[in-house]
Amino acid sequence: MTGVVVRNIERADAEIIRRLGECGVATVHEAQGRIGLMAHHMSPIWRGASVAGSAVTVSAPPGDNWMLHVAIEQVQDGDILVLAPTSPSTDGYFGDLLATSAQFRGCRGLVIEAGVRDVADLAKMKFPVWSKAIHAQGTVKETLGSVNVPIVCAGAHVRPGDVIVADDDGVCVVRREEAAEVLKKAEARIANEADKRKRLAAGELGLDLYGMREKLAAKGLKYI
Amino acid sequence: MTGVVVRNIERADAEIIRRLGECGVATVHEAQGRIGLMAHHMSPIWRGASVAGSAVTVSAPPGDNWMLHVAIEQVQDGDILVLAPTSPSTDGYFGDLLATSAQFRGCRGLVIEAGVRDVADLAKMKFPVWSKAIHAQGTVKETLGSVNVPIVCAGAHVRPGDVIVADDDGVCVVRREEAAEVLKKAEARIANEADKRKRLAAGELGLDLYGMREKLAAKGLKYI
Amino acid sequence: MTGVVVRNIERADAEIIRRLGECGVATVHEAQGRIGLMAHHMSPIWRGASVAGSAVTVSAPPGDNWMLHVAIEQVQDGDILVLAPTSPSTDGYFGDLLATSAQFRGCRGLVIEAGVRDVADLAKMKFPVWSKAIHAQGTVKETLGSVNVPIVCAGAHVRPGDVIVADDDGVCVVRREEAAEVLKKAEARIANEADKRKRLAAGELGLDLYGMREKLAAKGLKYI
Amino acid sequence: MTGVVVRNIERADAEIIRRLGECGVATVHEAQGRIGLMAHHMSPIWRGASVAGSAVTVSAPPGDNWMLHVAIEQVQDGDILVLAPTSPSTDGYFGDLLATSAQFRGCRGLVIEAGVRDVADLAKMKFPVWSKAIHAQGTVKETLGSVNVPIVCAGAHVRPGDVIVADDDGVCVVRREEAAEVLKKAEARIANEADKRKRLAAGELGLDLYGMREKLAAKGLKYI
Amino acid sequence: MTGVVVRNIERADAEIIRRLGECGVATVHEAQGRIGLMAHHMSPIWRGASVAGSAVTVSAPPGDNWMLHVAIEQVQDGDILVLAPTSPSTDGYFGDLLATSAQFRGCRGLVIEAGVRDVADLAKMKFPVWSKAIHAQGTVKETLGSVNVPIVCAGAHVRPGDVIVADDDGVCVVRREEAAEVLKKAEARIANEADKRKRLAAGELGLDLYGMREKLAAKGLKYI
Amino acid sequence: MTGVVVRNIERADAEIIRRLGECGVATVHEAQGRIGLMAHHMSPIWRGASVAGSAVTVSAPPGDNWMLHVAIEQVQDGDILVLAPTSPSTDGYFGDLLATSAQFRGCRGLVIEAGVRDVADLAKMKFPVWSKAIHAQGTVKETLGSVNVPIVCAGAHVRPGDVIVADDDGVCVVRREEAAEVLKKAEARIANEADKRKRLAAGELGLDLYGMREKLAAKGLKYI
Repeated sequence: MTGVVVRNIERADAEIIRRLGECGVATVHEAQGRIGLMAHHMSPIWRGASVAGSAVTVSAPPGDNWMLHVAIEQVQDGDILVLAPTSPSTDGYFGDLLATSAQFRGCRGLVIEAGVRDVADLAKMKFPVWSKAIHAQGTVKETLGSVNVPIVCAGAHVRPGDVIVADDDGVCVVRREEAAEVLKKAEARIANEADKRKRLAAGELGLDLYGMREKLAAKGLKYI
Repeated sequence: MTGVVVRNIERADAEIIRRLGECGVATVHEAQGRIGLMAHHMSPIWRGASVAGSAVTVSAPPGDNWMLHVAIEQVQDGDILVLAPTSPSTDGYFGDLLATSAQFRGCRGLVIEAGVRDVADLAKMKFPVWSKAIHAQGTVKETLGSVNVPIVCAGAHVRPGDVIVADDDGVCVVRREEAAEVLKKAEARIANEADKRKRLAAGELGLDLYGMREKLAAKGLKYI
Repeated sequence: MTGVVVRNIERADAEIIRRLGECGVATVHEAQGRIGLMAHHMSPIWRGASVAGSAVTVSAPPGDNWMLHVAIEQVQDGDILVLAPTSPSTDGYFGDLLATSAQFRGCRGLVIEAGVRDVADLAKMKFPVWSKAIHAQGTVKETLGSVNVPIVCAGAHVRPGDVIVADDDGVCVVRREEAAEVLKKAEARIANEADKRKRLAAGELGLDLYGMREKLAAKGLKYI
Repeated sequence: MTGVVVRNIERADAEIIRRLGECGVATVHEAQGRIGLMAHHMSPIWRGASVAGSAVTVSAPPGDNWMLHVAIEQVQDGDILVLAPTSPSTDGYFGDLLATSAQFRGCRGLVIEAGVRDVADLAKMKFPVWSKAIHAQGTVKETLGSVNVPIVCAGAHVRPGDVIVADDDGVCVVRREEAAEVLKKAEARIANEADKRKRLAAGELGLDLYGMREKLAAKGLKYI
Repeated sequence: MTGVVVRNIERADAEIIRRLGECGVATVHEAQGRIGLMAHHMSPIWRGASVAGSAVTVSAPPGDNWMLHVAIEQVQDGDILVLAPTSPSTDGYFGDLLATSAQFRGCRGLVIEAGVRDVADLAKMKFPVWSKAIHAQGTVKETLGSVNVPIVCAGAHVRPGDVIVADDDGVCVVRREEAAEVLKKAEARIANEADKRKRLAAGELGLDLYGMREKLAAKGLKYI
Repeated sequence: MTGVVVRNIERADAEIIRRLGECGVATVHEAQGRIGLMAHHMSPIWRGASVAGSAVTVSAPPGDNWMLHVAIEQVQDGDILVLAPTSPSTDGYFGDLLATSAQFRGCRGLVIEAGVRDVADLAKMKFPVWSKAIHAQGTVKETLGSVNVPIVCAGAHVRPGDVIVADDDGVCVVRREEAAEVLKKAEARIANEADKRKRLAAGELGLDLYGMREKLAAKGLKYI
């Protein structure tokens, strides 16, 4: 099953993806029932990026970034590269040359459960990356992997074309076919939260706002 | 012993707390005999905050942030929320809505041996947080914990009302009843260090400034 | 073999060191055959520093920073302090007073497989540090170590006078006697990469630029 | 999608499962193209167990073992329970009472990316467990999860009814519909290895047995 | 507060301690409301030990085992040494010579959030140890710590004379003054569990035995 | 510098190696001044092995075990294979086939800062291994490394022909040219310890045996 590149993948609607990105990771994760979140060791190499796009997935051997070159040809405007190594690696699979190429093709970012390098340049280029490590360690180009096959990245199952939402809180995957429905719920949450934020900012307590006092008392909470 | 909220806790003198905050974590930790420091995995979600306040402690189940809502009602101006989960967790217990509510009540920050989310918003709000992780992972509100009971947070024993000092170097706990004495020693250190800094900046060596050469020779240090 | 300070060490040529620093860690690491890189847990306490210098090595006991005071006397303009504890430690061996002293002597930075503190001050002073941890934890001055002996720091073998190159991608060691040759290869890589970057920015694919298509096909890559 | 129990799942042929178990994890993993292996932090609580069975999957909240009680009712003779928490946990979800119940229903073992307890009893009962931790930490029964839905456990995607093979080398997942073909390849490897083992035991070198010398020379290996 | 040895500490009743040991860690931890458990990284250096005793606490600097020699003089028959380093350490503080001395004085074991060595000998001597690491790394005897002061060990607050219960599931602390009451609850649990075990072994499901079906349905669990 | 196999290496005297092995890791490490110890994450895959031998070193790419086949040809009776990957890896580089081949040539064990597999078989074969992980994960044979060059393995600098001593306490490296002298000191320690063990077993306290009371008092230790 290795050594395969799937050329044609389906993607979600561009406008839906855009609006999911605006909702942000925490909201999208809640809206879809608290699933799809990658592990917390996936962190942004620079703060402040907030993106959404369609996953072009890469399964690559440890310490071998050959498949990234293959994957970039499959990237379309609005895509996000998602790479999972076949065994744990912190090597620097990706640097400023690959980012230059990816950016030319409209790639919105990289999500990689491994390492990246040239991070000062990547920050200057405003190319967003979520990774497990920053490391200059070089890689080889010897062994095949696959592009656009289902992968497990940082604990999340990602299929090609699924929607990736990523910001300072981490990375969340939305199944392509559920994107519209998740968006609806996410935007409803945001509308709902705006009102709550206003009331909390005015001093109302969550205990009252969410009607928690009775349930707490029923569970036996005691004030001393 | 779970399911308890202690309403009235004693706090240290506000002026002493303020001045401990100005001394900073490293100095306060030294001044009280190198105790009370939390583990180094507690790091600020944004750099540059430097606070001191009275601990409102929270003991909460893993993945359950219900008690934070309860705790916020107990917060007074100048307090710092300190949460320890009853077993290890990296979930996002706290986000911008809770921060809005905490900030209204004068809360100076959060120290949590777990995760937080909405960190871009928290940074914009200038709400200081020291945490073990950043993660969007949502929590439930099902199981009781306690508020204002003694807890162990990141290796430090914290009692409600103890003074928390936190900055980019980490988090330190000062026992409420020792706050005045620790402050005295801390301010003495700072006065002492100002002179040392000047002499070191002028090129004097620590070996001479601290009179180390003889002790080193006595231990057998050899120059080749 | 402990308890020794070697006073006279050889250093590489200053101009070679300077130019290695301009090449950066990723390039230097590649140029010398992907060796000499420290582990990825060595990270800068503030982003944006990029330095090169001659290693003044320190072997120190866990939680004991006495040897840093000894080492600073051995520092010359353009040196970088490199400390490895004799067993794992995250304690704060180094803070703003030591940095003041080191900076006076022309020290370009610190590489330490342990902790540092006063990081807000170190950032203000623009003193570069790569460390394993940030922690206020104080140290003692009781047990001898050695200065300017070979050490293993974060997985890399460092001899006194070896060239240290460090930036946001990590820390790399170049053997003193190979510095000139590594520099030649590193600068050749940079010249070569400038052209590649231009072509990639113009949309040429790495697959074509590096002539990978045939080798991929030979290995059996299939497009579906 | 949470709060669901799927009652009827398909399983692979019992004889195929049995023989996959005899092949062992390393061989099965190789036979199916080096995929499906769980992360190396999944280790047996006692050494020497070697099992294969059909996955009954459990998705459970952190620190909440309620769904294990639900799952046991779905276990048939020859099944293996596979539990992934929805966020990281090392709590002791499973002990001797649950094992007693599971064993009655023919459960062949537990694979859990969390903690277990009563391990001395579990060893006496010869109940095999692969877990991330051993910890007495108790759990609650408050929040729903799901049984027999697809999960990601320790980096592997597991669907209900997939074949689990586990021994001292770790845990491997074989897709139910590929079990027969993987078995064929695995048994071929074993036949092949028996001959190799004999020749290696007689002193033949792998370099000769696998014909590596020419390829090594072509790559440029130099003997000094 | 460092450099202190408290000679006279109160201990719990010997018979209560003995019976708590028979209950085991998991049961005692449950009986006292799921508190007092040390972190799961504290594991036995050999399997099968199950002990209970009174804590003689040791606060020691990293990489310095001097205080263990001081502490052994304070050990009485039935005590357990509990050591927490003042900053993280994996050094081998304890080996067969110290164990010989401890065993002479009736010490029942060692709980240490650091390393030990000579583990083959310790196993032969049947001296139980729960530690964070096994490492031959030697320590110095230079800096004072304290004996029989309150410490935080692996996340648990331990006061001298508190009861320590330890087995293959980990280590649990029971406050001395609550030992009798915790024992009562623990023994009640055991009586209760014996009946449950019998019914589960006979095939009754936990769902029925614990009456969970209605609560699950009320929460919305769906069977498909 | 990669792609090199050094055929002729010097080894220490066989009798000295044998006797170093009898001294054990903790004693040898102490005797040579507490240096040369590998990190504590190097643990035996089965307990009770205690070996010493000459290092045949292997530098190998992550996830690529080709060089082990090359290295086995260089093994002589009494050697120990020592492998360090060029970047972190937990893959299973070594299993029962390689062990069969190594054992034929008189190899006394493997020290590998990566993973191994077939551990049940390795234990049955009584082939000793110290590793960072146990994992079935397969490796490729694509990229050259080197054999019998200096490496850094688990924090220790190892040159071909250096003496490796390994037991349940970990792994220690003795420089070939210092082996005789280290042995002398190690055997002196053992003679000295035998007497101490007897006196400690008879109840004499370390405080008296080592004459610590005065030094402790001088440092300010207070008994309360």
